[in-house]
Amino acid sequence: MTPSRPARISAVRVTPIALKDPPLLNASGVHQPYALRAIIEIETDDGALGIGETYGESDTLLRLQASAQALRGLSPFDLHAVDLAVRTHAFSAEEQKKIATVPGSKAARVFMKTFGAFESTLADLCARREGVPLAVWLGGQVRDRVPYSAYLFYKFAEHIDRPYEADRWGAALDPAGIVAQARQMVADFGFGSIKLKAGVFAPDAEADALLALRQAFPSHPLRIDPNGNWSLPTALHVAQRLGRELEYYEDPVLTLADLAALREQTGLELATNMVVCDHAEFRENVRMNAVQTVLLDHHAWGGLRATRELASMCHTFGIGLSMHSNSHAGISLMAMTHLAASLPHLSYACDTHYPWQCEDLIQGGPVRIVDGSVAVPPGPGLGVDLDRDALGALHEQYRRCGIRERDDEAEMRKYDPAHVKRKPRY
Amino acid sequence: MTPSRPARISAVRVTPIALKDPPLLNASGVHQPYALRAIIEIETDDGALGIGETYGESDTLLRLQASAQALRGLSPFDLHAVDLAVRTHAFSAEEQKKIATVPGSKAARVFMKTFGAFESTLADLCARREGVPLAVWLGGQVRDRVPYSAYLFYKFAEHIDRPYEADRWGAALDPAGIVAQARQMVADFGFGSIKLKAGVFAPDAEADALLALRQAFPSHPLRIDPNGNWSLPTALHVAQRLGRELEYYEDPVLTLADLAALREQTGLELATNMVVCDHAEFRENVRMNAVQTVLLDHHAWGGLRATRELASMCHTFGIGLSMHSNSHAGISLMAMTHLAASLPHLSYACDTHYPWQCEDLIQGGPVRIVDGSVAVPPGPGLGVDLDRDALGALHEQYRRCGIRERDDEAEMRKYDPAHVKRKPRY
Repeated sequence: MTPSRPARISAVRVTPIALKDPPLLNASGVHQPYALRAIIEIETDDGALGIGETYGESDTLLRLQASAQALRGLSPFDLHAVDLAVRTHAFSAEEQKKIATVPGSKAARVFMKTFGAFESTLADLCARREGVPLAVWLGGQVRDRVPYSAYLFYKFAEHIDRPYEADRWGAALDPAGIVAQARQMVADFGFGSIKLKAGVFAPDAEADALLALRQAFPSHPLRIDPNGNWSLPTALHVAQRLGRELEYYEDPVLTLADLAALREQTGLELATNMVVCDHAEFRENVRMNAVQTVLLDHHAWGGLRATRELASMCHTFGIGLSMHSNSHAGISLMAMTHLAASLPHLSYACDTHYPWQCEDLIQGGPVRIVDGSVAVPPGPGLGVDLDRDALGALHEQYRRCGIRERDDEAEMRKYDPAHVKRKPRY
Repeated sequence: MTPSRPARISAVRVTPIALKDPPLLNASGVHQPYALRAIIEIETDDGALGIGETYGESDTLLRLQASAQALRGLSPFDLHAVDLAVRTHAFSAEEQKKIATVPGSKAARVFMKTFGAFESTLADLCARREGVPLAVWLGGQVRDRVPYSAYLFYKFAEHIDRPYEADRWGAALDPAGIVAQARQMVADFGFGSIKLKAGVFAPDAEADALLALRQAFPSHPLRIDPNGNWSLPTALHVAQRLGRELEYYEDPVLTLADLAALREQTGLELATNMVVCDHAEFRENVRMNAVQTVLLDHHAWGGLRATRELASMCHTFGIGLSMHSNSHAGISLMAMTHLAASLPHLSYACDTHYPWQCEDLIQGGPVRIVDGSVAVPPGPGLGVDLDRDALGALHEQYRRCGIRERDDEAEMRKYDPAHVKRKPRY
């Protein structure tokens, strides 16, 4: 059974969307009223369709759109040809040189994001053509459900500009607010572990919030993530207060050297999505034993297959696996779920912002999170389909909202004109 | 375009074959008159066929045959299910425990061989179903031709038992013989680099042979591989004589510790297929900087996709890539060629024993080696098909030849009753 003609990419569509996003606080500032994403659709000339979701900021978007035309005619399997098309059509000669030679450069990282968006969409397409779940197509489904953690944020009750009705979560600006938020999240979604996004208020106040969570949830694994907003002495101080309560300590400080020193002095399990972001940093981290767990993110690491390679490398070096999240819709959630379902050595419940989103664009959505986990659907590919009316409405929302860049720092200045992003702040 | 029903494996055939093999000398002894291989065929219920080739010794063969029935009904993409089927049907409970927990154990290595044979056959099947070359299906073809090196051996003129006519190469037992062999190989196949299998005679005699090659081939990269048969002092002595002539120095000594010491003292590029054979050894090698180049072998490393992961890991850690070979037929050669054609970071011409084989089982064969390289065929999958008459004849040869295990040491005792394998010998 050889097809008369191999399948070729016949169409690529890139549609920016804006999702309502609550005023979640973090080390940089506060989320804007809308989170930007791009929806990718790729068709082959035999009538198959793959869908994907990635970052929607203008730089990524421009490069995705610049690549789209160049993918036509390629085999959906030929990632090398896709790679070349993206490099040469979406990056300048100078950027192409950096992509090839400087792994940590901005160009190299934007390339991984751009290429990865197409790679994951093509993986969905190929799995759908075969009628098998994406997890199976990636190499096999090792679990039926993927566990996620409750992802707590300090937050305001509503956006200062009041662009739409306030969300159902209310404000969370102190330990009591964080505990109330956790109770609601665990009640609604059944999460079995909890992560607190920190780096916002004074470290001792945030440590108080985590200890309050421990009181309220005696047996839930707890994590804290100040996004590198603490100095080494601050991180050591918080480690003394929280050390034995933490499942892992995520990006307390911002450099591999400081993380290595923190590990040396505390013995705590350190995790990152900020300082092991490419292969050069992975190698350096192995040398220094800075972090012991890496948060995977197929959006940032060049797609699903490259992230599976990263996971295999982590296993080789005894590095734990968790998963990172940005504000995202259900297509990303399902890609994350299939990826995690295909990884034999996943060590921890994954991160997701999904409970914070009240809008989605998949048929029959939103994705249900039950007992803190998402079931891997038995259907082909991602197992979910685009709701084209919702896609149209969210694209229209993108057009109208006027936001083209994520800028949490500028957004925070609406609340506090003196606010400046500064790392480490504490 | 979603198929009405996903493809399922409907048949698996494992056929042992014996290939005439010349009396090539090595650290263990001498090749027997026949090399054993197993040919794998897998069919899916939509009429597709994939072919593969692997080791044919009785232990591997029994495990391949024990697994075959258990693969029926599985998706050709579901490597996790294939992995489980092989583990549970071809390995004892005790072996399964070792596979899961002791990477360097015999069980773990035999498992990688057994699983890898099916994985590579399934990859061919999937690529054929899509009508694309295997290299494309693996992620993209980055080169049209794959370079191989001339693989020189000390050899006798013919087997002592004279089971068939003497080969065309004659004896090579001294520098002049080796140079003559090299001239013939380079003339016949156009090889652009040369490897000498050593570890047979006194190290200084072998160093003399390499220096004679240098005289005869002033600009060919040269390698020497004594298969770990030298002590550290011997390897240091040979390094002093040959150091600046070597492209790389392959497995001069048998442990990571000795290789690390050799590297430290000589600064030479060291390569291996003997001491970095699993992920635990890879990790240890990174820690010790013992070898700087790894010879890939998809037959031993769990298949084509696992070997691509290994290659990616080598690239991350700045480790060079070459490729290992055992005596093999054209199906292995084509799988090696597609794999190498899909690796962006291949550093060296690959090894192959193929010029030593005078029998093959592919239609229109043998594979042509021109300008020292094999062209990647444009057809689906491996791009070559089984010649069933030849398969039948080589299986009949297997039945008749009586050899069921490779035993170079016992074979050598026919020539020298006092011969005992001993490493390091020198």
